[in-house]
Formats: sequence, C-alpha cells, structure tokens
Amino acid sequence: MDYQQILDTIYEEMSYRDVRGKVASYIPELAKVDHRKFGMHIYNGEKQHFCFGDSKEKFSIQSISKVFTLSMAMRIMGESLWDRVSVEPSGDPFNSLTQLEYESGIPRNPFINAGALVICDILVDQLEDPKKELLEFVRNITGDENIDYDRSVASSEKSTGYRNVALVNYIKALGNIKCDVEDIVDFYFHQCSLAMSCKQLAQAFMIYANRGRLLESDEKILKPKSVKRINALMQTCGFYDEAGEFSFQVGLPGKSGVGGGIVAIHPEQYSVAVWSPILNKKGNSELGMKALERLTTLTGLSVF
Amino acid sequence: MDYQQILDTIYEEMSYRDVRGKVASYIPELAKVDHRKFGMHIYNGEKQHFCFGDSKEKFSIQSISKVFTLSMAMRIMGESLWDRVSVEPSGDPFNSLTQLEYESGIPRNPFINAGALVICDILVDQLEDPKKELLEFVRNITGDENIDYDRSVASSEKSTGYRNVALVNYIKALGNIKCDVEDIVDFYFHQCSLAMSCKQLAQAFMIYANRGRLLESDEKILKPKSVKRINALMQTCGFYDEAGEFSFQVGLPGKSGVGGGIVAIHPEQYSVAVWSPILNKKGNSELGMKALERLTTLTGLSVF
Amino acid sequence: MDYQQILDTIYEEMSYRDVRGKVASYIPELAKVDHRKFGMHIYNGEKQHFCFGDSKEKFSIQSISKVFTLSMAMRIMGESLWDRVSVEPSGDPFNSLTQLEYESGIPRNPFINAGALVICDILVDQLEDPKKELLEFVRNITGDENIDYDRSVASSEKSTGYRNVALVNYIKALGNIKCDVEDIVDFYFHQCSLAMSCKQLAQAFMIYANRGRLLESDEKILKPKSVKRINALMQTCGFYDEAGEFSFQVGLPGKSGVGGGIVAIHPEQYSVAVWSPILNKKGNSELGMKALERLTTLTGLSVF
Amino acid sequence: MDYQQILDTIYEEMSYRDVRGKVASYIPELAKVDHRKFGMHIYNGEKQHFCFGDSKEKFSIQSISKVFTLSMAMRIMGESLWDRVSVEPSGDPFNSLTQLEYESGIPRNPFINAGALVICDILVDQLEDPKKELLEFVRNITGDENIDYDRSVASSEKSTGYRNVALVNYIKALGNIKCDVEDIVDFYFHQCSLAMSCKQLAQAFMIYANRGRLLESDEKILKPKSVKRINALMQTCGFYDEAGEFSFQVGLPGKSGVGGGIVAIHPEQYSVAVWSPILNKKGNSELGMKALERLTTLTGLSVF
Repeated sequence: MDYQQILDTIYEEMSYRDVRGKVASYIPELAKVDHRKFGMHIYNGEKQHFCFGDSKEKFSIQSISKVFTLSMAMRIMGESLWDRVSVEPSGDPFNSLTQLEYESGIPRNPFINAGALVICDILVDQLEDPKKELLEFVRNITGDENIDYDRSVASSEKSTGYRNVALVNYIKALGNIKCDVEDIVDFYFHQCSLAMSCKQLAQAFMIYANRGRLLESDEKILKPKSVKRINALMQTCGFYDEAGEFSFQVGLPGKSGVGGGIVAIHPEQYSVAVWSPILNKKGNSELGMKALERLTTLTGLSVF
Repeated sequence: MDYQQILDTIYEEMSYRDVRGKVASYIPELAKVDHRKFGMHIYNGEKQHFCFGDSKEKFSIQSISKVFTLSMAMRIMGESLWDRVSVEPSGDPFNSLTQLEYESGIPRNPFINAGALVICDILVDQLEDPKKELLEFVRNITGDENIDYDRSVASSEKSTGYRNVALVNYIKALGNIKCDVEDIVDFYFHQCSLAMSCKQLAQAFMIYANRGRLLESDEKILKPKSVKRINALMQTCGFYDEAGEFSFQVGLPGKSGVGGGIVAIHPEQYSVAVWSPILNKKGNSELGMKALERLTTLTGLSVF
Repeated sequence: MDYQQILDTIYEEMSYRDVRGKVASYIPELAKVDHRKFGMHIYNGEKQHFCFGDSKEKFSIQSISKVFTLSMAMRIMGESLWDRVSVEPSGDPFNSLTQLEYESGIPRNPFINAGALVICDILVDQLEDPKKELLEFVRNITGDENIDYDRSVASSEKSTGYRNVALVNYIKALGNIKCDVEDIVDFYFHQCSLAMSCKQLAQAFMIYANRGRLLESDEKILKPKSVKRINALMQTCGFYDEAGEFSFQVGLPGKSGVGGGIVAIHPEQYSVAVWSPILNKKGNSELGMKALERLTTLTGLSVF
Repeated sequence: MDYQQILDTIYEEMSYRDVRGKVASYIPELAKVDHRKFGMHIYNGEKQHFCFGDSKEKFSIQSISKVFTLSMAMRIMGESLWDRVSVEPSGDPFNSLTQLEYESGIPRNPFINAGALVICDILVDQLEDPKKELLEFVRNITGDENIDYDRSVASSEKSTGYRNVALVNYIKALGNIKCDVEDIVDFYFHQCSLAMSCKQLAQAFMIYANRGRLLESDEKILKPKSVKRINALMQTCGFYDEAGEFSFQVGLPGKSGVGGGIVAIHPEQYSVAVWSPILNKKGNSELGMKALERLTTLTGLSVF
C-alpha cells in the first residue's frame, strides 16, 4: 500500500473543495485559529510515517483527549469502571440531562461530556497529581516529551464553561461525583487544552491499533481487552451526533475534537490523524471527515 | 479456519450455562415457544455450511426483518431514502417520542420501530403488493422458496400492537407518513412474523457479507455502497439499547429480534445466525450474544 | 352591577383593536369561519341576560366540551375517576408523551387531549349511546333543545386527527384505555364538534357558578364538591399553556377552545361566554382573553 | 366569622390525625426539627390575631421566601421582569432541565428553583447588599425587627446544594444569569434559611391580602397589579407538583416550603400561616394542607 501516494491524492482533491461551516467559537481562543490550516499524518505498523500539509503544527485536541483519560482510568479501575459510566451511544443531545436524572447520574458513555467528567473525577480521586500524570502518559505513548497544555486555551474555556460546571454539580447531586467540583473542572479544561500535532496524535494512537503496546518498545500500556473496548466505544460514540455517519463514511473507530482534529485507527494496520478547523453542523471537522472517507475508499481498508 | 470445530466448542460450552431472563411475552404467540431451543448456523464465502442444534427449525425473526425491508427501500429510493429516516443511534428509548417531535417526524434510524414503520410506508406506497414482494425478495436472497409469514404471530401482534399503531399515527401527524395507517401496520406485523431458520437467515444475510451479490449466482441485489451503509447501521444501531455492548463483545455488524434470533456478518468471510429465545434485560438473546462473542474470540476475526 | 353597560364599554373598546394571530387552520372546516365574528354573553344569578355582537351565532366549541364530558364522568365515577386521570397542570406541551410514559398512561389532567380521551373511554365504556347522552346532558343544562353536533366539523377533524388517534393507541398500550380506539376517537371528534352560541354556553356553564344546580329548576346536576373540583381544574389547567396568564389577567376559572370561544364563571355571580375566532400564539382567542380581562377589571370581581 | 373557634375546631380535629410522611432530610439541619410541631395563625383585615399551638415558634421558611424576593424584584423591574422568567405552571419536575434548554434559559415561573435563582441574580445585580435589604424588606412588611437568617441552615444547604449550583451554571450557559454564581447561590441559601413564626408569616403576607399596602400604616409596598400577579402565581404555581390539588382542596393562593410551612391569603379577608414539618409525597406539609382545607370549608370562604 503506497500511503504517501494516497495522501497526495487526497491533498490534491481537497485543495479545490469548497468548505462551508464555522470554526468553533464558543471557546474564544479557538476562534482565533487560521481556518485554512489542513494537515494529515499516517503512522503504520511498519513504523513508517506519511503526511501532508500542516501535519506538524500543534492544535487544541479538545475531546480527543477523552480517549487518553479513559485509557488511564481503565488502567486504574479495570472493569469496575463501568459501574460509573455506561457504554452505549447517547442519542440526541437535548435529552442528556433528563437521561442523567433517570439513570441516577450514570452517563451514557465516556465520550459525552458527562462521562468524561466522571472519568476526570476518578483520576482526580486516584492520582496524586492528575495534570502531571496525564502529561506523562501522553508523552510516553507518543514518544515525544514536547507535548504540553495550552494554558491560554484552558483559561479561555474555564471562563465560559458554565455548562460543564453545571454538569459536574448535577452529577454530584445524583451521587456519581466524589471530588471537589473545582478540581475536576480544572483538570477537565486542562486535558481539553492539550496541544498536539497530527504527527503526535498518530503516534499516540498507535497503541489502539497495536493491541495496547507501544510500537517502538513493545511496552504494554493497555490490556488487549481494554483496547477492544476503547475501539468499540470510538466506533459507536466517537463522533457526537454523527457516529452513524462516520461509521458509514469511514468505517474505522475514531475520535474527533472541536479543535478540528480527528484521529482514527485501523487495527493492526495504521493510525491516522487529520486536522482542519472548519466544523460541519454536527461539530466535526468537515474536511477531516472527507479526507478519512477518501482514505478508506482509496486503501479499500474499512471494517465493513 | 475450522468453523465446525469452533461451533462444536461453543455448543459444548453453552450447554452448561445457566440462563436467566425471559422469553418475549408481549406478543402472546411468542410466549409459547420452547425456551430451551438453541441453534446456530454459519455460511461462509466458500459456500460451506456449519451448524449445531436447532439450526433448521423456523422461528419468528421479528426485527431482523427490518434489514430486508430497509434493503428493498434502498433499492427503490437510493440516497433520497435518508430524507425520510436518519442514520444515527437513538440513545435511551424513553425519549424516542420527544425526539420525533423535535426532529419533525424523522426517526433516528431505520431499526427503531418508528424508522421501520416509515420504511413500511415507503414500500406500501411504491409496491403493488408489498407483502408478496417482500416474500419474493427474501426467498430470492435465501435461495429457498420455503419461507412464509406466520399468520398466527401476525394477528397476535396486531391485537396488542397499540404502541406501533400510535407511532404511525404520530408520524403521520408530523407529516412523514403517506399511506393508510392500517395498510402500514398490517405490512409491518406481517414482516415481523416472517418465520425462518438459522440456516435460512445465514443464507439470506450472505449478500451483506458479499458486497451485495448472491453468492451462488453472483446476481447483484444491492450496490456495494448500500451494503456498506446497511452494515454500518447494523454495527451502530442493530441491538436496541445494547449496540455499544454488542460492538465490544462481538465486533461485527448484526441485527437481533425479540424472537431470540441474531444474525451477524463478517464482510468477505461469513454470515452467521444464532437462535435462543431467552432474552436479556435489553431484549437481546442472552445465549445468542454469548455464542457470537465466543465465535469472534475463537476465530480471532473481529472488526476491532 | 350594570352588566349591560360594562359589555357595551368592552364592545366599543374592542372594535378599534388591532388583532393579530390566526384562525385555527389544522381542522379544515374551522379555517372557513369569518374571522371578524365577535360576540359575548353574560348570564347572572338573577337569571338576567346581557350580550353584544354575534352572541347568538353558533360556533364550534371544541375543547370547551371537555368540561361537559368531565362532568358526566364525575357523575358516573365519583372520586374513583382520579385513578384514571390526574389533576395537575401539564407544563410545556412537548413533554406530554414522555410524561405519559413515565406516569404509566395517567394523563396530567382531564383538559389536555390525553386526559379528555381517557374521559371519552370512560363514557364509551359506561354509556349505552354516549353521543346521544352527551347531547341530552348539554341540552338539559343549557335548557335548549336546539343544540347539535356539526357533523362536517367532526369528519373534518377525523380526517386529520392522527395525533389524537396516536394518543389513544399509546395510552391503550400503557393500559389506561379499555374500549375500541375507533369508538373513542369517533366520540371525541363529535364532542369537539358541538356547535353552541355564546348565549347557550353561558346558560350551560351556570351550573358551575351555581354549586351544581340548574338555576331555573334548582335540579341538582353535580355535587358541590364536584363543581369545586371542576372549577379548580378550569383555574389551573383551562388554557393550554396560558393558564397562568389567564389566571392573572382574568382571575376566573374558565375554559377555551380553538374555535375561538372562551367560557368563564364567577362563583355565585355569573357565567360568561365570549367568541372571536382569531387565536394568539398559545391557541386562545386573542380578543376573548382581552374582553374577559376588561370584564373583571370593570366589575372589580376577580378571585384575586 | 369567629376565626378563633374555627381554629380551635381544626386543632382538635388534627390532634387525633395519624400523620405519615417524612420531615425534609436533604438539608441536614432541617432533619433535626421535632416532627410533632404544629401551629397556625390567622391575621385578618380588622387587625385581629387568632392562633393555636406552636404559632410563635420560628422555623425555616425555605421556598416561602421566594414570594418575598419576587416582590422585591417586581418593585425594581416592573413588567420587564417577565422577559427573564415566565408565569406558567411547570408540569412534572423531571423535564425542568430539558424545558430550560428549549426555552433558552427562561424558567417557567419564579417559584421553581430555576426561576427563584434568576430572581436572585436580578437582586444581586441591582442591590448594594441584597442579604441586608431582603432582611429589611421582610422586617418592614412583618412589622417585626426580630427576624433573621439561620446561618446554620444556610451553610447546611450550601454543603449539599449541588443541584442548585448546577442550575445557576446551566442558566448562565444559556445566557439568563449575569452575576457570579457563588454570590447568587450564597444569597439563595440565605433567603431560604429565613426563620419566621406562623405569626410573623401571617403578618408579612397581609400585604398580598391588602392590595399591596401595610395594614397598620397603609404604606404602599406593591402596586395592586403586582399583587394580583403574585397571587395568581401562588394560585397556579405555589405548591410544586400539587398546585392543582391545593387549588381544589383549599382554593386560596398560597406558598409552601419544605420546612413544613404554608402561607395562604384570602384577598380582602385574611392571611394565614400553618406549620407542621411532616411532608406528604409531593413535598408539602401534610397537616398544613389539611388544616387549610378545613379552614376554607369551615369559613365557607374559598375562591371557588
């Protein structure tokens, strides 16, 4: 498979595309990003790298970070994690608060905000210094020390993130949050502010394509069963209200963020990250979705 | 891959299992089925058959039939079908009516009842004799003329199916149903009453594992793109409120029915059907789920 | 109190008003009504009549009829009626179906459609010929044999009333409807089609201002306790999503209908009916609300 | 009307009643109150006082305080207040968050928590020292300087009031809260902690029975129109999910609190307060409801 030729084809096709939609604006710092940015990076099982465009420029990974914190929580809690958060798609977003009420504060899955906040609570509860340990985890699986939080994004989000503060308080009222609300929210906004490039994301996500082991050192980070669970969750819940569409268009487990990044993996084959800040109506990167759809079409490698 | 040996292993393992849960009882006729029934059948790309137990006994396929009617509607409508029904998971069942209200009568996907009823409306509208043509379609893709409706099940359902009649009327009030309510409901209850064996289901579903073509004659039934869409829908929405769990446990696109049947396919490899009438809390066959989990574990063939 | 002078004042004030809003159009027959119609009628405890405008012209009373059927059901069932329907305001209309689901098919009150349909079920179940007996009841309390259904309105509604058919089926699925759906819906559409004038309505509603007795003959129609309950229900639930506003503006128990009619009563004093077909955003007669507000302001007789 | 004799009758009747239900326990301090406490106080238009039992003992007035803060907000904002909060009953409590989402953060009425918190926001925004000014307002209308917050109740509530903190953050995310969340919540928990006796409450509520004027000095506190609005709101929304039942049983505008207090007024006649800490299923004082029902039955003075 000549991945570089395929990437070149995609880059060329996309360069003429008319992109509608908007950059995320509810976090003031994100609204400042140049909306013409576009990069893509593939990392395959033979440790080869392929890329185009702004693939080495860092951006705010936002919800993509939920895969990292979920992984850390699974290492700590094992299967008992599922007593605190469920594993099913969440349906339309309007009902998420009513759903929490009826299901006693157990969020539908770890990728909706309610679920990610419960995961934060677990890490804040169990770890000495969760912000430091998350950085170490991400740097380790990426094999790159040069990853950090973007503190201006974190504060920007903190100043407008009332809905997330509401969620934590609400779940705490329902009995599924242990720690201090402020600690949880501080950790959550930091995790979302992680700045990584497509290259770094592709490297980091290789563990999910490689049965939980670092490709370089073969170090075991996650149990194969945990990886299977995370991949299944990415497949069914990784794209907000567009999981079904992504499953069809791309057919790979993946996770998107409102910063315009998307990561996907093909088990045993490769991990791929793409970045373009303009979002479609459902909040996923417009060009990112299309680039990944072209990738699986051109490689003929989809899970379906 | 020695499928027969794997099936034998599964059968042996399962024979000692303690099964909790209940047979579906809301349709009186279904409550009469012997709950000890258990059968499984694999049909692979080399046209080989493997089976155990009651794999040749017919049962009520119920919601599995939604895959057939969806296929027929896609042949007629093509992509314009998605103006009438969406393709996303539906989340918790309690909110389905509120969701319809807010989304102007467009059901979340074709496998929830609201969606299947809109598909019925399309077929009743477009076909001369929808009940006859559905039978012909299913007999053709199965390669078996010996398939029919179980009219006692159809009437049994009709006498208690007020919720479905409510749904059709409600969607009609919202403008997304054209035909007479009674015709739609009559067709719907007939489609659900289709009686098929595991063997017949495995044969019928081979088109979804074989890019839309009959394995025997290579006749083209569905476009490859339509098959990809149907498989993606089965992956994300095929198991009521347990799609995420099935995706993790089994990792294959599939569809279950309250009659206790489950069908799944591994693209390019095989189709498989399993039947055991006892349902878990979410309404899927308890043993069926486990048998399929064992199958993908023993074959090592999951999409993740 | 010179009611005639007050009515004359209101009529003069209103004649210059600019009326926005629309005539009800979802029932085709109602859309044909001349939107300039305007009439009002007061009937007081001294058996005196006061009126203006089109007060003797009949119109479709629609939901006002729910007070009559509720009264009949209370005569039959007594307090056990409240096992089938509750007595609380219903909040925003969007959630009414979800509410039914959670509250096991018990509608919030007898004036939302779900509640009125359960009342219909009771009457269809308990009466030999409910349509005939409803007519007799209304003619008796009005003291006027010249009242009938408008069968063109009833059929008009029947041809578009899918939402009500959905409701009955849904409640039947939840176990709170006994009779045949068609019989209930037929009775419901007939009751809504009752054609009465302001004068007739004011006469009929005198029983609710007169502790349950006919003013003319002192015949006891309802127990005082039943009247108190009905009046309390009209106060808190009589105006769709505008009960709070009406309670403030007018301060009397009342009931409106989409035909543009409103009836209200001042216990021990008078009953009043007003008709103007143009509806405000919440579905109540725009001029009717204002006329009644002026009435209680000018008479100084509000319950607050 | 011999009010004292009526109160004596009620006291005697009630002394033999079997009371089921529980004292409010979600606020730890409230759970400590002696559940046998029972007092009642009437203050009439002739400045006469009538009482029985623990009518001079202070208790936590909780939600009854919402009438005071609403009154203060109406004095400041006039009719523009209704741009920030609506005036309709709220229906079942489960949907309140969904309702806020759909109605852009405008709470259904000022007596549900969401609405009371928006009222707090207005007072915190407009007043120099809202806690001090609320005390002054309440002391003035009561004519009693001896009223204060119970700071142990306020802190008790603060330590468990996550649901209210969630609400404020949520409404702020929807754009209908201006001030700092902490200031609003601090004010809210203080207002709820106001400790008053039945006598003091009856005195304070006399302004709502006396067209907005102090009975003693004739000082104008509220416009008659504002009083009419507040009374209408108490009638339709004053009793959580039991407004309809209270309207029927008692037939007076009133407001209850989880501390077991209820206040009601009969316009132009009297104000009345009753206290018994044991709550029925809907969260209103069990004995308090019954005592008021007896009062309107024995006086024959209900609005219906």
